[in-house]
Amino acid sequence: MGRQPADIGMHISEVDTPALILDLDRFEANLAHLQDLTRASGVRLRPHAKTHKSSRIARLQMEAGAVGVCCQKVSEAEAMVDGGVTDVFVSNEVVGPRKLRRLAALAGRCRLAVAVDALDNVVELAAAVAEAGTQLDVLVERDVGSARCGVRDSAAALALAQAIAAHDQLHFRGLHAYYGGAQHIHDYRERRAAIMGAAEQVRETVEVLEHAGLPVEIVTGAGTGSFPFEIETGLYNEIQAGSYLFMDRSYAAIEDREGRKTSEFAQSLFILATVMSRPEPDLAVVDAGLKAFSTDSGLPLVSDDEAMVLKRISDEHATISLPSGSSLALGQKIRLTPGHCDPTINMHEWYVCIRNDVVVDLWAIDARGAFF
Amino acid sequence: MGRQPADIGMHISEVDTPALILDLDRFEANLAHLQDLTRASGVRLRPHAKTHKSSRIARLQMEAGAVGVCCQKVSEAEAMVDGGVTDVFVSNEVVGPRKLRRLAALAGRCRLAVAVDALDNVVELAAAVAEAGTQLDVLVERDVGSARCGVRDSAAALALAQAIAAHDQLHFRGLHAYYGGAQHIHDYRERRAAIMGAAEQVRETVEVLEHAGLPVEIVTGAGTGSFPFEIETGLYNEIQAGSYLFMDRSYAAIEDREGRKTSEFAQSLFILATVMSRPEPDLAVVDAGLKAFSTDSGLPLVSDDEAMVLKRISDEHATISLPSGSSLALGQKIRLTPGHCDPTINMHEWYVCIRNDVVVDLWAIDARGAFF
Repeated sequence: MGRQPADIGMHISEVDTPALILDLDRFEANLAHLQDLTRASGVRLRPHAKTHKSSRIARLQMEAGAVGVCCQKVSEAEAMVDGGVTDVFVSNEVVGPRKLRRLAALAGRCRLAVAVDALDNVVELAAAVAEAGTQLDVLVERDVGSARCGVRDSAAALALAQAIAAHDQLHFRGLHAYYGGAQHIHDYRERRAAIMGAAEQVRETVEVLEHAGLPVEIVTGAGTGSFPFEIETGLYNEIQAGSYLFMDRSYAAIEDREGRKTSEFAQSLFILATVMSRPEPDLAVVDAGLKAFSTDSGLPLVSDDEAMVLKRISDEHATISLPSGSSLALGQKIRLTPGHCDPTINMHEWYVCIRNDVVVDLWAIDARGAFF
Repeated sequence: MGRQPADIGMHISEVDTPALILDLDRFEANLAHLQDLTRASGVRLRPHAKTHKSSRIARLQMEAGAVGVCCQKVSEAEAMVDGGVTDVFVSNEVVGPRKLRRLAALAGRCRLAVAVDALDNVVELAAAVAEAGTQLDVLVERDVGSARCGVRDSAAALALAQAIAAHDQLHFRGLHAYYGGAQHIHDYRERRAAIMGAAEQVRETVEVLEHAGLPVEIVTGAGTGSFPFEIETGLYNEIQAGSYLFMDRSYAAIEDREGRKTSEFAQSLFILATVMSRPEPDLAVVDAGLKAFSTDSGLPLVSDDEAMVLKRISDEHATISLPSGSSLALGQKIRLTPGHCDPTINMHEWYVCIRNDVVVDLWAIDARGAFF
């Protein structure tokens, strides 16, 4: 891990920048809230570690009641298991002998599941666990609208489930059906309709599989933007949300039933930046740019003052337009709300955890860069 | 540093993905070519380490004739000096006591220069070097069109230079005048005109400073898109280009005098990705997404086949539209040309160096995440 941007006990104004700030009161409220909601609904929560990239946060989620975590990559799963996580679902296809050897070995160290969408991949998986002498749970990925990975129909799902069931060391457990594209549909009714449409496809596939004598124990999916709808279907019994812990500008833009952009989760994650130049009365330059936050889902917002607007971003700078008469001074710090939390977190090595503007802890982002 | 994606001697098809691939023959040709051009023109080359983030590459540049490197951050400069670099210009303002203490200490370990654009910052700098007992070269940053950091006129530059000269441990050396916005102007004549306009502003400031008895030894700036013009001005005597080593989709789009997109530098940097799903005949999903490349300057291109087009990117996936009848198979690897090299490199921890498709070395990106 790299150099720490802060020491415990520091005031936020002393933190070295750019830094990833985590407001622990808000973070803990978010963590508890989704746990409570899923518990009350009788579904399991298996949050996605691709968002937080931290085994420490994964353990906090499990202590609160999560059944385990999702990971997107084998190396991410290895980092979680190294950090004490005991139950991981790699909600993604793992392809190639090098990765499969590591996956099969990891299955000897935790309860492990993986997604598949191709018969050739089942053959590869079976060979890897046979060589390693381990057991692996397998879920068939069912595409429900993302047009990314996943089988496109129930017949393909059935063929895969049968192939999995034919191997002693592979255990068919159910369906992975995540609709990423639906998470960011702003309109409540359209978003709900997208998930209800997805659920119809999943329901048909469940029926085909169970009719063929293959019990579907797990139906897993859902994200921060859509999980109430997956729960409403009565079909999904595992929820994979990840961004609810932090939130971002993109998730803050989706609307509730009344068309209001008021999330039940609070923005707990910020980029702290320092004013490094005040070249004109209505212009400030801060020391955070494309290496400190992702811009794929829009530029960050200035959290502390909506009259300040990010105009341009370069590798190490953001140029901010200020309201007339602004007293923002050289060396002053401002907080930015990232556009997209996952790829932003992945650029950093530490969460600087604060309460009441004082640094109370630093948490390592130990799976940063674990994208293999 | 994290896990290595490859071992020396491996064929590229065995490399774990996503990985950052560096074609060493092309890289070495690029490195030699700019060194030759600057040497022939009688200007010094001080390449920007913010692009490569590697002390090993910095040393290769200096062995080839570079006078030192530019850095954008104190921690980046520390990583370079830790790796054996002896001459660094921090081409950026350094603000705040914590950073300034480190900068002043680093000045005891190498020849070090820094940029300033505010009188308050000169006072802070002087206090830091006084406390550390070190010496620091200082350049005034002159804005020439980027509307980012830098003084806006010659009077402000003069006031700063005089303030620097008033301190025994600070040494006024010249002007830093980098026009970032000009680098990516596609049209040759417009790009040249932008730099010629910038040079007029610099020339006036040089005259004002020298008239006041403050010799301007160094005029530094220029990037991969514009350096021939800065050289042509006869005014710039240090060139800061960085991307010329690697190139990217964005730099490949700028035009030469005849309107052709033919750079004198070769694309040496690629993202290697593996086909992890082939869900439809004309669709492939590869295992590299927003955590493996930056999208701020456009999506990556498929290097090996221009008929393959990246359609959608998510955190860990890129979905690629394939030409009809494509035989691209599960597990096959493809190379992507990144949209913007600097923030892409900063996501990775290793350059996988290849010659003739065989891994011949791995170079640590030892300043990755050094953005403090």
